[in-house]
Amino acid sequence: MSSLAELPTPAALIDVARMQANILRMQQRMDALGVHLRPHLKTSKCPQVAAAQRAAGARGATVSTLKEAEEFFDAGIDDLVYAVGMVPARLPQALALRRRGCTLTLVTDSVAGAEAIAAHGRAHGETWPVWIEVDADGHRSGVDPEGEALLAVAAALAGGGARLDGVMAHAGSSYGLDTPAALQALAEQERARTVRAAERLRAAGHACPVVSVGSTPTALSAAQLAGVTEVRAGVYVFFDLVMHNVGVCTLDEIALSVLTRVIGHQADKGWVIVDAGWMAMSRDRGTQRQRQDYGYGQACSEDGRPIPGLCLDDANQEHGILHWRGDAGGEPLDRRFPVGSLLRLLPNHACATGAQHPAYQALRPDGRTEAWPRFNGW
Amino acid sequence: MSSLAELPTPAALIDVARMQANILRMQQRMDALGVHLRPHLKTSKCPQVAAAQRAAGARGATVSTLKEAEEFFDAGIDDLVYAVGMVPARLPQALALRRRGCTLTLVTDSVAGAEAIAAHGRAHGETWPVWIEVDADGHRSGVDPEGEALLAVAAALAGGGARLDGVMAHAGSSYGLDTPAALQALAEQERARTVRAAERLRAAGHACPVVSVGSTPTALSAAQLAGVTEVRAGVYVFFDLVMHNVGVCTLDEIALSVLTRVIGHQADKGWVIVDAGWMAMSRDRGTQRQRQDYGYGQACSEDGRPIPGLCLDDANQEHGILHWRGDAGGEPLDRRFPVGSLLRLLPNHACATGAQHPAYQALRPDGRTEAWPRFNGW
Repeated sequence: MSSLAELPTPAALIDVARMQANILRMQQRMDALGVHLRPHLKTSKCPQVAAAQRAAGARGATVSTLKEAEEFFDAGIDDLVYAVGMVPARLPQALALRRRGCTLTLVTDSVAGAEAIAAHGRAHGETWPVWIEVDADGHRSGVDPEGEALLAVAAALAGGGARLDGVMAHAGSSYGLDTPAALQALAEQERARTVRAAERLRAAGHACPVVSVGSTPTALSAAQLAGVTEVRAGVYVFFDLVMHNVGVCTLDEIALSVLTRVIGHQADKGWVIVDAGWMAMSRDRGTQRQRQDYGYGQACSEDGRPIPGLCLDDANQEHGILHWRGDAGGEPLDRRFPVGSLLRLLPNHACATGAQHPAYQALRPDGRTEAWPRFNGW
Repeated sequence: MSSLAELPTPAALIDVARMQANILRMQQRMDALGVHLRPHLKTSKCPQVAAAQRAAGARGATVSTLKEAEEFFDAGIDDLVYAVGMVPARLPQALALRRRGCTLTLVTDSVAGAEAIAAHGRAHGETWPVWIEVDADGHRSGVDPEGEALLAVAAALAGGGARLDGVMAHAGSSYGLDTPAALQALAEQERARTVRAAERLRAAGHACPVVSVGSTPTALSAAQLAGVTEVRAGVYVFFDLVMHNVGVCTLDEIALSVLTRVIGHQADKGWVIVDAGWMAMSRDRGTQRQRQDYGYGQACSEDGRPIPGLCLDDANQEHGILHWRGDAGGEPLDRRFPVGSLLRLLPNHACATGAQHPAYQALRPDGRTEAWPRFNGW
């Protein structure tokens, strides 16, 4: 336990009260829409954060690496979806986890992938639960819900060694939107295309019990989720400046920041130099093409209030440069922000910023902090 | 020891032969210019890489965090410069290292910083070796070599507790250049301004034995380094696509790549989906505004030959999207790059990409690989 002044900087600070409010908001919304919430744990990679999501009502979890699957299974979560297209080389690692008792669902969007999973299952006396990834918005992976590949992948799973348990989609293009109407329309498109894929599979004789959709912006914008059984979302647990620009959170709801100390000034340029560079913030420039560009982060006071006009406009590895965009008058910058003083920086992208840190510092409502470990790697 | 096919992906692969050639090239150049080479170890954060640089003739090292200082002191390097402006809150951590026998030189560019260091030294019976940072190019930190602050900072170090050992500059704006003439001119500016600062200090009665300059582009472009005693450079050990665009290395000299597997395709779009997203590559888009934009990386075959027209144009956390910019004819992408096949991706910025990985896989000339650990954090 320590106060902020005693923490080494830079540090990834979680405002626990904000995090709890974000978790509650999403869980209540999913409850109202009548679907399960399966949080994506790639955002935090932290057992304490996952435990808070479970305590609020989450069912199972989503992971982006088998390392996450292993760590969260060890932390007591036994219903996991590995939401990245499976390749043969990773099946032995997945099998080891399954043999330990984990319900590990795999994902594929190709006949070759489905055949490899099924063959591996048959060779090892396993029946892999598999979801077929559906393309909701042309964003990345997935089969066309109206195309032939959907049924061909399902057929490739039908010969033993695998079991088609569901379909999933991720409307990742939602990060590029910023109006409620556009977000609601994309949420409906994600829902409708994924449900349509499930209906075609059922008409072809497959059970397909699970219909899984999700991204934080669409989850918070969907008007209804008829036919959907569960939603996956990740970044809502912390939120960030990208989500603020998308329009799904206020600055005051962002629960992750980087605590930093002022290490110098270039007074004539209006620069404040801090000890959070891109190593602490990540190189993510996700707000660059959004309605407001925050550089590498929005500066806040030590107690978390945004300082209008002060953003991390440039970042070297261990140096951050805050450019003062505000009024040039008033107190000089080196007196207003003296060497050694503390600031917080709100991140563009919480998943990327968290990944730069070996642990979080969780700031409790009573002002005490404690270290919450996180992990990286594959 | 294992072959590439047995490695889990994504993996940060070091081509050891290329790395050794890069180390030799820089060391021979510094030897010819008559200066010491003090490599910046923030690029690799890896004891094996640092050992190769020492074996080739490096003298001491530069670090960007006290964690690096601790790790490399434990690895046997006892002459370290912590090249980030010192703040009072970090002095206890630095003192602990100094008490263990490390020659840890600190850096400052302000009277307040110098006073804090000197007061700490006096309070603890230490004499901190300190360099004054000089602004070579308006890039970031440092005092004007012609200004009053230079002498004021030196005076603040003169009352005990500290010893002015030198001046340093880093011409970081060299990363934005791409012609030999411009690079040579900036190298000369970096040299001249730093030497000028040392001369002014000596004229004022300070010894100032060390004159330290450096960045990889200026180090490889300087025509002469009269008055300079040592050069600091970091990324040369691996090089990367940014350095290739600057013009100081060929693609074939880039020693760091990310080994990745194909996990899917979107054939109609010309997309190959791989398991290296931004978590494996970093979010660094350093080539975005350079002469050639490589997206998040240039694809190479499994054996390291660049594949013209195939770049990682988009990246999600664990998904990378290679956009085929080449001829649409010929073999279909899913046959040319089948699911499960291996590729290497050259990174924009080696320091940022390395930081995403808990270890490197060092690929020996005989084709065997071994894990070389690296660390992160502060």
